[in-house]
This record gives sequence, C-alpha cells and structure tokens, in this order.
Amino acid sequence: MDFAHSQRVETLRERLLAFFDQWILPAEAVYLDEQRRHQAAGNPWQPMETVEALKPRAREAGLWNLFLPDSPRAPEGLSNLEYAPLCEIMGRVPWSPEVFNCSAPDTGNMEILERFGTDAQKSRWLEPLLDGSIRSAFLMTEPAVASADATNIECAIRRDGDAYVIDGRKWFASGAGDPRCQLYIVMGKTDPGAELHRQQSMILVPADTPGLEVIRHLPVFGYDDAPHGHMEIALSGVRVPASNVLLGEGRGFEIAQARLGPGRIHHCMRTIGMAERALELMCTRLKSRVAFGKPIADHSVWHERIAQSRCMIEQARLLTLKAAHMMDTVGNKVARGEIAMIKIVAPQMACQILDWAIQAHGGAGVSDDFPLASAYASIRTLRLADGPDEVHCGTVARLELRRHDTAA
Amino acid sequence: MDFAHSQRVETLRERLLAFFDQWILPAEAVYLDEQRRHQAAGNPWQPMETVEALKPRAREAGLWNLFLPDSPRAPEGLSNLEYAPLCEIMGRVPWSPEVFNCSAPDTGNMEILERFGTDAQKSRWLEPLLDGSIRSAFLMTEPAVASADATNIECAIRRDGDAYVIDGRKWFASGAGDPRCQLYIVMGKTDPGAELHRQQSMILVPADTPGLEVIRHLPVFGYDDAPHGHMEIALSGVRVPASNVLLGEGRGFEIAQARLGPGRIHHCMRTIGMAERALELMCTRLKSRVAFGKPIADHSVWHERIAQSRCMIEQARLLTLKAAHMMDTVGNKVARGEIAMIKIVAPQMACQILDWAIQAHGGAGVSDDFPLASAYASIRTLRLADGPDEVHCGTVARLELRRHDTAA
Amino acid sequence: MDFAHSQRVETLRERLLAFFDQWILPAEAVYLDEQRRHQAAGNPWQPMETVEALKPRAREAGLWNLFLPDSPRAPEGLSNLEYAPLCEIMGRVPWSPEVFNCSAPDTGNMEILERFGTDAQKSRWLEPLLDGSIRSAFLMTEPAVASADATNIECAIRRDGDAYVIDGRKWFASGAGDPRCQLYIVMGKTDPGAELHRQQSMILVPADTPGLEVIRHLPVFGYDDAPHGHMEIALSGVRVPASNVLLGEGRGFEIAQARLGPGRIHHCMRTIGMAERALELMCTRLKSRVAFGKPIADHSVWHERIAQSRCMIEQARLLTLKAAHMMDTVGNKVARGEIAMIKIVAPQMACQILDWAIQAHGGAGVSDDFPLASAYASIRTLRLADGPDEVHCGTVARLELRRHDTAA
Amino acid sequence: MDFAHSQRVETLRERLLAFFDQWILPAEAVYLDEQRRHQAAGNPWQPMETVEALKPRAREAGLWNLFLPDSPRAPEGLSNLEYAPLCEIMGRVPWSPEVFNCSAPDTGNMEILERFGTDAQKSRWLEPLLDGSIRSAFLMTEPAVASADATNIECAIRRDGDAYVIDGRKWFASGAGDPRCQLYIVMGKTDPGAELHRQQSMILVPADTPGLEVIRHLPVFGYDDAPHGHMEIALSGVRVPASNVLLGEGRGFEIAQARLGPGRIHHCMRTIGMAERALELMCTRLKSRVAFGKPIADHSVWHERIAQSRCMIEQARLLTLKAAHMMDTVGNKVARGEIAMIKIVAPQMACQILDWAIQAHGGAGVSDDFPLASAYASIRTLRLADGPDEVHCGTVARLELRRHDTAA
Repeated sequence: MDFAHSQRVETLRERLLAFFDQWILPAEAVYLDEQRRHQAAGNPWQPMETVEALKPRAREAGLWNLFLPDSPRAPEGLSNLEYAPLCEIMGRVPWSPEVFNCSAPDTGNMEILERFGTDAQKSRWLEPLLDGSIRSAFLMTEPAVASADATNIECAIRRDGDAYVIDGRKWFASGAGDPRCQLYIVMGKTDPGAELHRQQSMILVPADTPGLEVIRHLPVFGYDDAPHGHMEIALSGVRVPASNVLLGEGRGFEIAQARLGPGRIHHCMRTIGMAERALELMCTRLKSRVAFGKPIADHSVWHERIAQSRCMIEQARLLTLKAAHMMDTVGNKVARGEIAMIKIVAPQMACQILDWAIQAHGGAGVSDDFPLASAYASIRTLRLADGPDEVHCGTVARLELRRHDTAA
Repeated sequence: MDFAHSQRVETLRERLLAFFDQWILPAEAVYLDEQRRHQAAGNPWQPMETVEALKPRAREAGLWNLFLPDSPRAPEGLSNLEYAPLCEIMGRVPWSPEVFNCSAPDTGNMEILERFGTDAQKSRWLEPLLDGSIRSAFLMTEPAVASADATNIECAIRRDGDAYVIDGRKWFASGAGDPRCQLYIVMGKTDPGAELHRQQSMILVPADTPGLEVIRHLPVFGYDDAPHGHMEIALSGVRVPASNVLLGEGRGFEIAQARLGPGRIHHCMRTIGMAERALELMCTRLKSRVAFGKPIADHSVWHERIAQSRCMIEQARLLTLKAAHMMDTVGNKVARGEIAMIKIVAPQMACQILDWAIQAHGGAGVSDDFPLASAYASIRTLRLADGPDEVHCGTVARLELRRHDTAA
Repeated sequence: MDFAHSQRVETLRERLLAFFDQWILPAEAVYLDEQRRHQAAGNPWQPMETVEALKPRAREAGLWNLFLPDSPRAPEGLSNLEYAPLCEIMGRVPWSPEVFNCSAPDTGNMEILERFGTDAQKSRWLEPLLDGSIRSAFLMTEPAVASADATNIECAIRRDGDAYVIDGRKWFASGAGDPRCQLYIVMGKTDPGAELHRQQSMILVPADTPGLEVIRHLPVFGYDDAPHGHMEIALSGVRVPASNVLLGEGRGFEIAQARLGPGRIHHCMRTIGMAERALELMCTRLKSRVAFGKPIADHSVWHERIAQSRCMIEQARLLTLKAAHMMDTVGNKVARGEIAMIKIVAPQMACQILDWAIQAHGGAGVSDDFPLASAYASIRTLRLADGPDEVHCGTVARLELRRHDTAA
Repeated sequence: MDFAHSQRVETLRERLLAFFDQWILPAEAVYLDEQRRHQAAGNPWQPMETVEALKPRAREAGLWNLFLPDSPRAPEGLSNLEYAPLCEIMGRVPWSPEVFNCSAPDTGNMEILERFGTDAQKSRWLEPLLDGSIRSAFLMTEPAVASADATNIECAIRRDGDAYVIDGRKWFASGAGDPRCQLYIVMGKTDPGAELHRQQSMILVPADTPGLEVIRHLPVFGYDDAPHGHMEIALSGVRVPASNVLLGEGRGFEIAQARLGPGRIHHCMRTIGMAERALELMCTRLKSRVAFGKPIADHSVWHERIAQSRCMIEQARLLTLKAAHMMDTVGNKVARGEIAMIKIVAPQMACQILDWAIQAHGGAGVSDDFPLASAYASIRTLRLADGPDEVHCGTVARLELRRHDTAA
C-alpha cells in the first residue's frame, strides 16, 4: 500500500497545477460572468465558451481522459491511485473537470461502456465521449420512490420484437441540461418477477428518441448548475433497438454496482480538493480581518476549527487513497466497504469545513463572491446522490457485523 | 414566568392558523410560480401580487402590525411573549410575514422609529411603514470589515452646515431590492475620535437621495430572495438634513443594541416555526416511502433524529419564550444574555433539523419542490446576520464568567 | 404554564441554599475522607456518619420528604414543579439527597407504595421509609437480557399456595449495598403466557428472606458508590406471602410505568444541578489559570463552550419544568413524551458540560480533587438506567410520527 | 509512503497475535482477580504476578523492546512505522505492553536516555530499563499551574557546587506507584531568567533520594491504576550530582519535545487497538441481544454507529501510519504537525467508539465485566496528558495559518 506518487504522476501533477494557475483560476470570474450573461439573456442551457476555449489547451498538455484505467482507447488513463491527486486538484474548481474530459457523469458512463459495451456500442458512443464531442447522462433515480433501494425502480423496459419500449420517469439526471448531451443510459426493469437483483437492465437511449421529454430542471439550493443541470425526464413509449441493452437483460444491478465504484471515488477525490480550498480560503480570510482588537485568526475558537479541518482532510484523503489502491489491486467488489466509507466520510467532512469557512467569511460566505456556498450546495447533495449516507452506513455495518460472526 | 396563552392570544392564534390554512398554504405554489415568471421575464425586483392580494384580508382579520408593543400608533401590538406563538406560525412560510406587515427588516425599523424617532420622523416614515405603503432597509454591515465589531464601521457621516454628508459602502441591505423600499436607516461614524461606543450615529436616508447607488444583489446560496433581496449599496456624498439623525449624534451604538433585541427574537420565533414545519415534512415523507422492506419511518436511525428534533424544538421554544418574557418585564438590556442565547440556539437547531429533513427527502430535499433547501439557506445566513454565533457566544460567556467573579 | 416560584417554594429554596452553604458543601471533603477510611479498612458497605449527622438538622429545618406530592403521610411533599428547583440544588452534591430523605431509589419506591400499596404494606414499609429508618432497592434489570424491553424479563414469580416463589437474577440494584436496605421491590413474570404487558408483577421482598443472595457489587467507571452500591442479586426459591404482591398480578408493567415518571424527572433535576455546578467550576478554574500569556478564560474556544453550556442548561431546565408541570396537571401518561425527552436531554447535556469542565481542569479534572469525574460516571450511567436513550428516542419518535398520521 | 508490512513485521505480528490468543486474553480475568485481591488486602501497590509470569515468555518469543529504533542496546527495535501494527495489538489489553517491556512511560524514558544520555547514564539506567529490571517515571506536570505551557513550570533546579538541588511539586507521575520504579526524570527550571525555551532542564533523580516524597495517588475516574498509579510527589531540597542533568542545562524543553513524539504516537497506536476492540465487543454484543422483536444489531441507529466507528478507526490508523512514516524519514520536528494531529484525533475517536460500545452493553458497559469503562477513563485522560487537545489544535492551526502566509 504505497501512496507515494510515481514519477509520471508527479509530472502530471505539476503540469496540472501549472495549468490551474495559468488558465483555470483566472477564468473563475469569467465563467461566473458568462453564466450570469446567459441567465440574464434567458437561456442558461448552452455550452460555456470559457470551458470550450480551454479544452484544446488541456489536450495539448496531455491532460485529457486521465480517469480511465486500462482502456486501449484512452492510453493516457491512470489507475485510481494515480488519478487521485489529479482528480483532487480538479475538485478545487467545480466546472474544471470538463476541461480535461474528466467530468461526471460522463466519466462513469465511459467507464461502463468500456467495461461492458459491445464494439458497436463503443464506436457509436464511447469514442465521441472520449473525444469530448458529445456528452451523456445517467438516468437512475426516480421521483416516486426511494431509489437507493434499486428494487424500488419502476421504470419499465419491455421487449417488443427487435426493440425495447421504455416507460417511466427519472429525475436528477445530471448533465442532461446540456444541449450536447446525446446519450442517456437508462436503468429500468425488464423482469419485475425475477430475483431481486436480476430484475433490472440498463439500456442506451439516444437523447433524440421520440417519447422522451425533458420536463424541467431541478435547482440545488437555488443553483441551476447550468448548462449541466439536474433534469427531470419523462419517457413514454420510448423505443430503441434491442441491441441497445447493455451487457444483457437482468444485468442492470450488476452494472450499477460496477459503475458506482469509480463514480463515487472520483466524487470523493474532488470533494477533498474542494475541502482543501475551503480551508485555504478560511485561513486567508481569518488572517485578513480584525475583530475585537486582533486578527480573527488569533481567536482560539478558529484554531480549533482549523486544526479539526486539517485533521479531517488528511484522514479522508488517506482513506480515499486506500480505497483507490484496493480498487486497483483487489477490485471494486472487495473494496466495496472502503468505497462506502469514503462516500460517507468525504462529503460530511467537506460540508463541515465549508460550513466553517462560510462562517469565517461572514455574509460574503453565503454569496457568490466566494465558491463556498455553491460548493456546499453540491457537496451536500452528494450526501444523497449515488445512495444516501444511510445506505452506505448499512453496507459498512453489515460487513463489520459479518466479521464478528465467528466471534459471537 | 407564565407561558400560557392569554385568551386574546389564543383567539389570534386560531385566527392566524385558519388564515394559513385558507390563504397562505394554498398560495405557496402560486408564489413560486410568480417568482419564476418574473425571473424568466428578466425582472424579479417587483412586488409580488400573491402577497399584495392577501394583505387586505389580513388587515380585515385583525392580523396586522401584531409585532409592535406599546405603540399608540399600533394598538393591536402585542408584547414579545404574546407575539411569539403568532410569529412562530408566520415562520412556516418565509414570505408570509409581509402579508401581516410583520416582516424584517421593517419591524425592527418601525420599532426604533417608535422608540427613538421625533414626531416629525414618525409621521414621515413610521406611519406609512405601519400602513404597509412603503418599505425600508437597514444599512449596517460593510463589505470591507468585520462588521459585528461595531467599532470597525467605516461609513462616514460628516456634519456640513444644516446637513450630514454620508460616504461609505454597505451590503446585505435586506429588502432594498424592493422598488417600494423608500427609507434606508444608515449606521455610520460621526466621530471616529470619540469613545468606542459613542462614535456611531444612525441617520434616516430617503432611497432616492442623490449619491446613493444600489450596486448589485447578493445571492444567498443560489437564491436571489427577490423582490426583497440583499443589496450592496454605495453612498458617495449623500446629503440629508441634519434633522434626519436619529436620537442624536453618537447614539448609534445604543440604538443598534435596542434594535437588535426585537429583531433577533422575531428571527428566532420564525426559525422555530420553520423547524416545526421541517419536522412535520420529515415525518410525513418518512411514512410515505419504503426502502429495504419497510417504511423509512421504521428505521431506528430516523427515530433518533425525529426524537432529537422534537427535543431541540421544544427547548429552543421555551428558551425563546423566557427571553421574550424577560424583554417584556425587565427590558432588553437585562435580557441581553437570553437574547444572545436564542440567537445562538435557534438557527443552529433549525439548520440541523432542516438538514435531517433534507436527507429524509432525498434529491427532492435540495430542490424547490419542498421549502427545505431555501429555508436552510436563509437560516444558515441567520447564523451570520445580526452578529455571527461567535460574537453571541462571547456575550454569553462574558456574562457567565462575571457571575463567578466572587466565586473565584 | 407558570414557572415562577410560589412564596412557599422560594422560602424552601432559600432555606435549602443556606443549608448547603452551612452544612453540605463544607462536608464534602469530610465525606470523601470517611469513604476512603472505610475503603482502607476493607468495609465500605456501612452507613456514612457524615450523612447521618446532618439528617436531624435537615428534618428540623423542614427539609424532609419534599419529593412526595399528595400524600397524607408526607404533608410537606411538593408538586413536581415545586420540587424541581429544590431537587436541582440537591443534585449539586451527589450524596446530599439522602440527608433530606429525597434519594433514589427510595423516593420512587415510596411513590409506588403510596400510590399502589395496601394500608398494611404502607404501615409495614412506607412509614419507616418516610421516616428514613430503613432503605430500599428496586430490582428490575437483569444481566442476561436487554431489560429495557420489559417483555424480556426472565425472573419468575410463581404462585404456590398462600405464597409466591421467586427465581431469577437481578443486577444494578442501586442502594442494595447499604446494610439498612430492608426492602426489595422485585419485578418478575407471573404469567409468561399473558398479553405482553400483563405478564409482569411487582412484589415486596424483605431483604432477609432466605434464598436471596447479594452476589457482588458492580463498579461504575471504577467507583463502588459505597455504601449505596449497585448490586447483583440472585433469588433462588425466595418465598414471600401472597399479600406481598403490589396492586395485583399482572400489574407490574403498569406500576413500572408509573414509577419511572417521577424517578426519571428527579434524576433530571439533579442532573441539571450538577451541570450548573460543573459550569461554575469550569468558569472558576479557567479564570484562575494562565496559559500562553493570558487567563485560559480569555481563550475564545472556551467562550464557545461556556456559552453552549449555559444555553444547554437553560433549555434542559425549562423542558424539565414543562414536564413537571404536565405531570402535575395532566398526569404522567399524557406527559410521557416530555418525560422521555428530558430523560434523553438532561444526561447528554450534563455529560457534555462535565466533559468540558474536566478538560478545563487538566489532570485534576479526572481525579477526585473535583467532583467532575465521579459525576460524569454517574450521569453517563444514567443514559442507560431507566431505559437507554435509544428506547426513549423510540417513544418520542413514535408519538411524533403519530401526530402526522392525518397529515400524511 | 508505503504502509505495507515488511516480511519481518508480518512475522512479528503473527507471533504477537498468537501470543495474545494463547497468553494475554486468557489472563485478563486473572489479572482483574489479582488486582482485586491486592485491593482487598489493602495494598494494591505491588508488582502483578500475572504480568511477571508472562515476561519470560515474551522475551523468549522475541517480543521484547520492539519500540526502540536505532539503538545498539536494543537491536530488536523497530522503526515507528514497523512498530505501529504491533503496538496497536498491545493496546487491546491495557496492562499487556509491560509484558513486552513496551509500556509507558518507560518507553519514552528509554528513548531519551538512548538519544541524550551519557554512557554513564545509559549503563546506570538505560540498561536495567531495557532489561525490565527497574521501572521509571517522568515528572513534568505540576498541580499549581497549566503545565502544557512549559514556561509555567515552577519546579526549581538550583546548582549548588557539584550538585543540583530540586524543589517543587509534581503530579500525574504515572508509574511512580510501582515499588520497582527507581528513576524519576524531572523537568524543572535552572534559569527562570533565560529565554523562554532555555529556562528548563531535565535531571535524573533516583527514587530513593532524600527529600523526595510520594504524597498520594490520583485516581482516574474511580480507578487507581495500581500498581502503576498516577502519583503526586513533593521534592524538597532533593540533591543529586551535577552529572545527573540530561544533555545540559537549558536543554529541557528540547528534550521534552523529542520525548513527546514517540510517547504520543505509541499512545495513539495503542488507542487505535483499543478502539478496534471496542468495536468488536460492540458488534458481538449487539448480535447477541434481542429487543423489541429483533437483534439489536438490526436496529439501524446501530448501523450508523458501527459504520462511523469503522470509518473513524480506519482514518485514524492511516493518519498514525503517515505520522510514523514521517518520523522515520524526516524526523519528529518536521512531523510535529502530524504528531499533533494524531494526538487530537486518536483519543477523541476512541472515546466516541468506547462511548457507543458502552451504550451497546447497557449497565454491563460501565462495570468491570468488560474493559470498556476503564479504557474510557484512560483514553479520556489521554486527551489531557502530554498536552490537552487545545494545545495540539493550536500547533496544527499555527502551521496551517503559516502555509497561507504567501497566499494572504
């Protein structure tokens, strides 16, 4: 379990840090401005020039598709452990991962296409995704049921000759607000009568398929997260060729499990990066303001919070590295306890640190003058996305209780 | 210390509850729609028809200006203790207090005009405010300094013949987004060389005074809180008659202290109302959804949270009633410890319960389908407004340490 | 809901405070010394002279049996609301309640004898208990089962002619270490086949009945709590007259419910008194020591803790008064939610404040030089006694969920 | 930063685990019995046969003096990183480290003798300590001052010809209760007028030096921790040869800093071991008991706690390994932030898990039937020993704030 960076990773890390200093950080205000201009003009749902302009530079710098291990189509891909320090840096600016074609949910979608797609599916969808020329969404969660329990899924995928017909309603389809989003990967039930974890299938649905309607976007603590967005989508009699099913009927749960591993760990890495940034902002602010006769940084209640923040970040990072190392060496299934743990730990840690950082900034902390409130909104939502904390606690607890079966 | 409701209060309470059932709750979706229409049309900064339509009904029902004790101009005004259960009900729907002319910051502004205004100031400003025909803002916080320490205030109020000239920059001027906002009460320094708490003065500034510019609104998390808004305002050579000073030069700190008492306790009462609503929504949601074989309400981790929520609400309410009783009987100054305590307790309590309620709702919790995320944003901000928690903790701690002076 | 003290209570309160200043506080070191002498001599299980010497003074001062409302045998008894401020004072010194014949578990035992005993049972047991000439214990908890679920109770009470024969094992029988403990009130099952809450009965067992053996004492965080003690007791073929059953066969659960109300609220009142004392000691200590250039009291992390302590105590006290008022006016059954709430709130609050107070005292805090560590041990145990927190949370949660049945 | 075990460590680990299964765990009840017998006989301050009997077996197994890196006198010594997994195992049974001559405070004392002692000091004291034939104590903390601030130390070490004369009072001298304790390492001031961190010196004082008196033992919660003990010691005119000073006059602070690194990390490793054991006991207990119709392990509030426990342990362990690795590679001084972090994290983590484990055990949890309450007492004390949490938070916060000096 060696967490030291290889030379290759160290080189990429330095390059990525330099890229952030030169291109990303200076573009933050520009991005916010562009977003406001689109909103004022009444159409926030369009690609961001700020991001598009940086993509060629990122490709040129060799900072492209770093997330995907073991893929012949993305030879630049890194192992989870190698990717961690890079993904963490990207987490410091929420819109930056797309610059490097490393943004969710595309990364998770590319991962399952790589692992489970047919050659035809790969050339039709994986290649343009790796190229960054299209985007994709993942339609799992449903408004009507507690979707963390996959057996609750109600979306129906019914075989009809050479096709499947899909009926259902999905929401929180992140990324589906982007006009370039051309692929929906839809989770539904092909056989409600089968064994609990064989009822579900996953199917590839082109965004322009008739019967598919994007109903509305769902704000997250007041943010529309445009142009990405979190959309509610109705599917009525949506018909796709039978060959669009992924891996086979009844394999949906299995794919979901496989997808969630990398998806979750990437979220956690980025979350750690944002927590680092929050702590940095907190310290800088506390040093720059005076209250009741001394810099706020000298009030010991802030020493307590700064120290706890540093302790929490260090620990969450090490646990994430351990989970990444396990995914690389023993696989996502054996590492499922560790993946569940970081999914519990990292967002709670970051929410706490962001909350302190907000408090340190006074009113400015809840505004858009700092990236704290918006990061809080996203990361708070992460405690619900890909399974709420409670479900992951259940996973960890069951594994733990099982360890003591012989001890009882 | 008798917390039982008088007959009069009980009657008002029943009337207010009925008003909520009949008019306010059914209007929630209508309000949201109207807000979205204004935003889509590019101008959210206009009065809300939904609210205006209900005001005459509230007046007719005798539910108007209930907040102001001991004022000949508002005979319907209640004591703090009497007002508490009514204010709490209003807190359940954040936009509802304006329907009853009981919304911040107007209530606090009316309170200081009543207590400290000259007759001329009262007829010019207090009367239209009590009538609901104009609105007002309170300009205290400054972007450049830690404003909770009033000695940091940099806004200059300079005497110039029969006038005062004001230069400075203020932000988080809540309510200044409303086009009907005609009065700004501005805190500034008339004598930076005076003793620490005699440097500040408060002055009445008509919103249309030359030199005054509303720079921008500040979002809170992602909400603009239009048409109310939290505005940044620049004052450059703003000239007002010398008679506009409130109470006299050097009395600003004293007025601020007086103002903050009622302002804070109203916020706390409303916060308790929102916490009750969050708990109600949490319970209802948990009963309506099933996961892993049983209603989520039957999972014991939720029993823990529901029980803690109920315990926290009950305690915060009782402490708020005690503070109200003390303000009514021994005055705001003697009650300052209790006021500080509820300002610490109520928002932290409500943020925790809202956070659990959000978690109970899954993705829906962070969206606008429920009033939880927006309430979280407001109440989280309240931990910074009118002094951050840390300042109130300092107040309570100093009082406590002083109690043990003889014990030492 | 009037929490003001009546004149009578105020008089008693002043008298009790004076008694503490004159007799109790100066005796604390003496008590500790006596306890150590007994331990060194190898027999800690004997009455304490320090306590015995003060009893006549307490009786003389009219400070005797204050806990028992509505009893012709104890006309000095107060209502729960009246008793609260007095019981709180007694809580400041853990051994002091016995001085006033107001110590657990005797108070609860006297309460059920008064409410449910026959005249014969009252003259045999209640009168000497009220007189303080004997002591008693309550045998409910069993080592082998989760006893908070009363249906788990395994102790058997079998009718045999004119007698009952009892077999079982009990532990944490507090007070049974005292040689003057002559009465055990035992909870057991008379009919394991009956409806769940009609299986249990309570029966009066003289301590010298053959077949009864005190096996050992159970330390609590290293303390033996002698001479009171928490004992493990084996009952083998213990035979008592049939007339010793309390209220009737199958009424045990009902009596237990009735008993636990006053027992729990007294614990909470005393706990609040100890929390006050801890805060007092914390403040005094922090003011008396200097670290890194200033009194520790001036370090703001302690401001935070002092302020939170004061907020928590005030709230817990008000909630306890509300519960007491409800018990007095609407009865223990209607007040069961409030009783459960204070049982959750008060010990958690006090444990937190004691923990901070310990931290403020450095090594001295965990030693016997201050009453903090021993109070922590007792009050931490209280989170398990009379039902663990989790069971009370379940009670509160179920009541809350039921309130929203119509709302769902 | 490779945390994998070397072959040598893995071999030692398996051997140590086997030793625990065969010898230590079965001896726990025996140890408790022996302790009780000594207490009942009125002399708990004597060596424990249970421990002595196992020492030869441990030596024979090559499990002796594993803690001391880079010492020619202890070739079996391991690096901090290597020692961590072994020390963690020893932490599962609080009295076990002495069996392996790896117990505090001897380990820290041996460390400074090895690093800073003269040859004469080493042969006089280090050799018998490494041999386990004597024991030692460390006299730093003073009852009269906040000793975490080393400049507060009042103990005077005055040069008088060829000797030093020591006057002062020390307490919480752990291990000084043991009759075999022959060496006290005393921290005092040789030059109160020098620069703040050059005032202190450390000096070796044989326990039988005239003028030295062990006043009393200090209980920790209710435990005497005999025969080890935490003693209060008065030094009046204690005279030792000038050659007994360690490293030189004015070097005391520097040695203290050096000593505290290994001392703290060993405490943390053992603390993690105890936390693991607490979690194990918690799970086992929860599976063995039924309440309200199902095993307590199936109540989801316990899932939450078990999962959080596992997350906390994993994180604390990884952070401790990182600190150990840094101590081994870049030295204690560069690693001081990490050492401070684990000193904050590990005891807080373990106290929380022990608290949950106690709650899971009901009354049994606070008794001596399980090692939970006693471990809580020790580990709670650890939050005060070697500097309270607040001091370590200050260290971490200052380092963090300094990182952002350029950023400000």
